[in-house]
Amino acid sequence: MQKIVTDTLQINGVPIHYARCGTGQPLVLLHGWPEFWLTWQPVMERLTDRFDLIAPDLRGFGKSGLPDPAPSDKVGPDVHAADLVGLLDALGIAKVGIVSHDVGAYIAQILGRSDPARLTGLFFFDCPYPGVGNRWTQPEHLKEIWYQSFHQQPMAASLVGASRESCSTYFVHFLRHWSVRPDAFDDVLEAWVDNFMSRGNLQGGFNWYLSNNAARIAIMEGKAPPVTPITVPTKVCWGMEDRVIKVEWGDRLSEYFTDLGFAPMPGVGHFPHREAPDRAADEIANFFKTLIG
Amino acid sequence: MQKIVTDTLQINGVPIHYARCGTGQPLVLLHGWPEFWLTWQPVMERLTDRFDLIAPDLRGFGKSGLPDPAPSDKVGPDVHAADLVGLLDALGIAKVGIVSHDVGAYIAQILGRSDPARLTGLFFFDCPYPGVGNRWTQPEHLKEIWYQSFHQQPMAASLVGASRESCSTYFVHFLRHWSVRPDAFDDVLEAWVDNFMSRGNLQGGFNWYLSNNAARIAIMEGKAPPVTPITVPTKVCWGMEDRVIKVEWGDRLSEYFTDLGFAPMPGVGHFPHREAPDRAADEIANFFKTLIG
Repeated sequence: MQKIVTDTLQINGVPIHYARCGTGQPLVLLHGWPEFWLTWQPVMERLTDRFDLIAPDLRGFGKSGLPDPAPSDKVGPDVHAADLVGLLDALGIAKVGIVSHDVGAYIAQILGRSDPARLTGLFFFDCPYPGVGNRWTQPEHLKEIWYQSFHQQPMAASLVGASRESCSTYFVHFLRHWSVRPDAFDDVLEAWVDNFMSRGNLQGGFNWYLSNNAARIAIMEGKAPPVTPITVPTKVCWGMEDRVIKVEWGDRLSEYFTDLGFAPMPGVGHFPHREAPDRAADEIANFFKTLIG
Repeated sequence: MQKIVTDTLQINGVPIHYARCGTGQPLVLLHGWPEFWLTWQPVMERLTDRFDLIAPDLRGFGKSGLPDPAPSDKVGPDVHAADLVGLLDALGIAKVGIVSHDVGAYIAQILGRSDPARLTGLFFFDCPYPGVGNRWTQPEHLKEIWYQSFHQQPMAASLVGASRESCSTYFVHFLRHWSVRPDAFDDVLEAWVDNFMSRGNLQGGFNWYLSNNAARIAIMEGKAPPVTPITVPTKVCWGMEDRVIKVEWGDRLSEYFTDLGFAPMPGVGHFPHREAPDRAADEIANFFKTLIG
């Protein structure tokens, strides 16, 4: 196995940290919350002989820059998308495939519309997209989305970050609650807590929720501006046991992606890449394999 | 001013602690979350020469019994209503007026249907009632109700109670966010933290949300069983700036209360009894005055 190396480049005035390994067709891997690049390690290890894999930390996460450690609503998907374009430019990568999850899915959809010629394909593990609509607010689903509001409270980072134990309690809740296999993250729990307790990373992650809130509310209210369908070849693999973004909400994907493959993944929750890395890596490889040449 | 005395009686197998002062027509004062009997002190002081005022701690709150300090969904409004009936029996009080707020309002409505002959009148500060319906889930309102879901998480009490400072951070958030006058609770903040950090009181309060969840969801989904209107004389004073239970949601009160007075209170939020105790006490006195003799 080729070693994963990490580096940091100054992009749009902010240090963007990324991990990289492998040789072949370039693939970017975009993490969600509560994650950072390390969430992709199991998948990277399995694909390193076939792809040039680049997993950045989003601005405010991991070891990427945190220009404003205070609560901010200025770090939405457009900002992250611009960071990614800058990173690809700096690395001299003309065309790339994107694998994304959770927050990363929003960024991938931005690029699917703004830079389709630069993309070989879009691959999603589960996929928050506008077609979910007001189903986010189903009364029985409120127990799964409360954190999206809590993260916008000014006291959230100090409450969760009160101690290492508090931080661990909070993240263990999500990593286990959202996984069918509750030990999916056990081998990296300490690294997770180290990461989110460092610098202003708790607030850095929470700023996503502040920054995306207006768009989120608009989608829930059916008032989101119409978007053009994405024509880039797309594959969505969706954990059938995902509790927070439910697989049945994939029913409107074809309105938003014109060249779509959709594969529900049985026995997997919100984190296919950590819960079932063999299957996850195979799905990625099989999809991008068809897009080469 | 007559001194407030406290006592504890064994009711339905549980110690129920209450504060009492004054002489005259008996009034019970039922607190909400995040409160306990002490929230009524300013109002009690102002009414002590006209009423016999009894402010219990609900089971699981304050110094009342906590038979099950673990997460429990068995402490709903019926249980609290039975505790109150038992307390009134033990005190030899045949007929009583009820002043309630927040959680207390659910209990008052139970008694308004089950024991109307025992009640002189029902007085509410703000009033969660079935007519709120699916307005609880309006997308813009999610930022105000997330805690109702968070409190049902098994990790909530350990996160909030990680330290005295964490607990304070959490309660200060609600007491200030929900009050127009942000210093409304400043003189009792330490007592609040003492109270919620003692025994299993954090979980005791959170058990309300576990216990009331099925009924809450049914109301949001429009599937709550129909209830008979309450015929006991009722007055609802509603803080016009209440962020969590909005005054405009009072529009259907007359479907649920046949003998209703409704008075929006300008310049007041969720806690009229603490934010504007002079006005609050006057409203209570004026309402119950008309019900004597």
